[in-house]
Amino acid sequence: MMFARSPRFVGLVGLVVLVLAAGRAEAQGPRRPRTPNDMLKSTEVAPDHKVTFRIYAPKAEAVSVGGDFGRGQMTKDDKGVWSLTVGPLEPDFYTYTFTVDGVRTIDPKNAMIKQGLGSLDSMFLVPGEAAEFEELKADVPHGEVRQAFYRSHTLDQTRSVHIYTPPGYEGGSERYPVFYLLHGAGDDDRGWTNVGRAGFILDNLIAAKKAVPMVVVMPNGSLPRPANMPRFTPGSPPSPELRAAMEAMQNRFTDELLREIIPFVEKHYRVHSDPEHRAIAGLSMGGGQTWRVVSSHPDQFAYVGLWSAAVFRRNAEDGEKPYEVFLKDADRINRSIRILSISVGDKDFLVEGSKHLAEMLEKHGIKHELHISGGGHTWINWRHYLKDLAPRLFR
Amino acid sequence: MMFARSPRFVGLVGLVVLVLAAGRAEAQGPRRPRTPNDMLKSTEVAPDHKVTFRIYAPKAEAVSVGGDFGRGQMTKDDKGVWSLTVGPLEPDFYTYTFTVDGVRTIDPKNAMIKQGLGSLDSMFLVPGEAAEFEELKADVPHGEVRQAFYRSHTLDQTRSVHIYTPPGYEGGSERYPVFYLLHGAGDDDRGWTNVGRAGFILDNLIAAKKAVPMVVVMPNGSLPRPANMPRFTPGSPPSPELRAAMEAMQNRFTDELLREIIPFVEKHYRVHSDPEHRAIAGLSMGGGQTWRVVSSHPDQFAYVGLWSAAVFRRNAEDGEKPYEVFLKDADRINRSIRILSISVGDKDFLVEGSKHLAEMLEKHGIKHELHISGGGHTWINWRHYLKDLAPRLFR
Repeated sequence: MMFARSPRFVGLVGLVVLVLAAGRAEAQGPRRPRTPNDMLKSTEVAPDHKVTFRIYAPKAEAVSVGGDFGRGQMTKDDKGVWSLTVGPLEPDFYTYTFTVDGVRTIDPKNAMIKQGLGSLDSMFLVPGEAAEFEELKADVPHGEVRQAFYRSHTLDQTRSVHIYTPPGYEGGSERYPVFYLLHGAGDDDRGWTNVGRAGFILDNLIAAKKAVPMVVVMPNGSLPRPANMPRFTPGSPPSPELRAAMEAMQNRFTDELLREIIPFVEKHYRVHSDPEHRAIAGLSMGGGQTWRVVSSHPDQFAYVGLWSAAVFRRNAEDGEKPYEVFLKDADRINRSIRILSISVGDKDFLVEGSKHLAEMLEKHGIKHELHISGGGHTWINWRHYLKDLAPRLFR
Repeated sequence: MMFARSPRFVGLVGLVVLVLAAGRAEAQGPRRPRTPNDMLKSTEVAPDHKVTFRIYAPKAEAVSVGGDFGRGQMTKDDKGVWSLTVGPLEPDFYTYTFTVDGVRTIDPKNAMIKQGLGSLDSMFLVPGEAAEFEELKADVPHGEVRQAFYRSHTLDQTRSVHIYTPPGYEGGSERYPVFYLLHGAGDDDRGWTNVGRAGFILDNLIAAKKAVPMVVVMPNGSLPRPANMPRFTPGSPPSPELRAAMEAMQNRFTDELLREIIPFVEKHYRVHSDPEHRAIAGLSMGGGQTWRVVSSHPDQFAYVGLWSAAVFRRNAEDGEKPYEVFLKDADRINRSIRILSISVGDKDFLVEGSKHLAEMLEKHGIKHELHISGGGHTWINWRHYLKDLAPRLFR
């Protein structure tokens, strides 16, 4: 029979259970022959911060590894183990995947992963002082990250949201300011926790009294695709219809945030509900969403961060027209928005959009900051942008 | 240069960002040639509940798929796609992995996964009425699942715990009973949420008024391995030293729960703190831990569930000795424990342990229930055991 119903435990997990149960005198060893894979260390960080990747794929003809640190071809040894050493890398968390004979796959030996909407990446840490701001530290009080659900009438869906509450929230009675923190395309509301490490970054800043205690709301910014969404043809530029459909889809997030998420948060959590106690920031697609929300409702948030933002329609015929409500009244904007901070890496493929946005704001006399960091369109930068902006909020 | 620093976006995510930014006139299509992998549907559930698995591995020589439904060899078509159809399967969530030329790997096309301590499994749902008790339903109020951290002096570690709070907890003032729910070996405190679906099961039971609102505490039951742990030789029975070390390691969980976790929960959350409002259940290793806790501290929990439990040292020389405190005073036990429920599948490799435990309790006049279900040592059973026990708690 081809399909045998014989689920069974193998390896250490089975051993632990068998030893604990001890109802069977003999623990059975793994059945399959041992391979170089069994003891393989798939990521190894040397003291000099060079990182070696390894994967067992004896029959593959070409294997590469790539992530937010770059990409490179691996070489095979006589046991079928492919390896590549990169770096030294700055202490930080990195994501990576292998590509085995053209097929992208995560590291089968590493349970630390980033889950996207339709993608998976493996993760590793290069430890060191530069990464301490984002690590789980034993000697600081920890807040909580919770997953909550709300019913969105705007999207006609049950939606998930992740919420960080600072140490002392549970069991306390104080009200806190709220920071709305948006992820990028392909991610969902888990992103800022799983790979963005927002909770640990806030824990560490709050413990060091560098940031005031705040609630951080991380919504799901990925929107349902309309059924009639025009098709994308790979290799060709997106059609005007596709662009219009995507614009319309993105615009729905403004309603979702203002009509659903903020009222839900202010009803259920101990937060202040005035714009002076509200901040918003987002990365990439979430930066674009932040800009849409803020440019259409400039009096709702006192603090704004646009990170590697998908902003500024450089080639659009309508130029500044979508933002004219925002741009025409600099005095009002400059009173209501205390920080309008734009951050982007010099190697980010969206760097020009941020520069053009800053120029447009400059031209209209709207106070803002433009920070060009090193690096590209990566979580490495976004975690640092959070670390840099959070201390300046609600002061 | 072998290692090129050229991180770039490909595929739909990049497209979304590019279209939104529209700073570049042309969206770039994927660079690599399209393969049968691009459009592959890796799990497909037919209306008759048969499930087809597919993986693109044109160079592999043998591929199989296995999970908590069984295991089978796949066959390759002329495009390099391996497939196998199994079932029909009962509506439920299932875990699976592929084994490609001897190497275990998760499904590269499926972002729904179960993360263990050192393992990954892919997951899929066979939808249907029988699975409704564990699904996220739009028309019921939802509680929250949060991750909290506490400092354990017993283990000298910062430990993570997942906590379900029922609808109405946040913003309310009521106190709730607490259910301590333990996972198995190889898992951690995420397990009962990610694969166990405890929050959704409770949401649905509470909405239907089948269960009273309760807080569910899901600790991390995986304990630090002592540095001097004796080695395990695959293929040989575990040595007496290894067994003793594992026993000692497991016994630490009793202290961890009673001295650290319960005081942390009762200090920070709105819960009742008397044994009448405390339940405990665990699966496999966690069932063993539950039995250790309860047999040594029988007056601390009014409701007890032992599921596929790693219990009863059938061959141990000391027989009933470790439990003599528990066994000698049936009257007291029968007064303090209102439900002592043992559940195990008839194909579970630990079924004999549960039967022997029930016989021992019977012999000493201790009230208990033994439920032998179908199925094996799987989350499929454990989710059902939760659904069956939770309604009977705190009544």
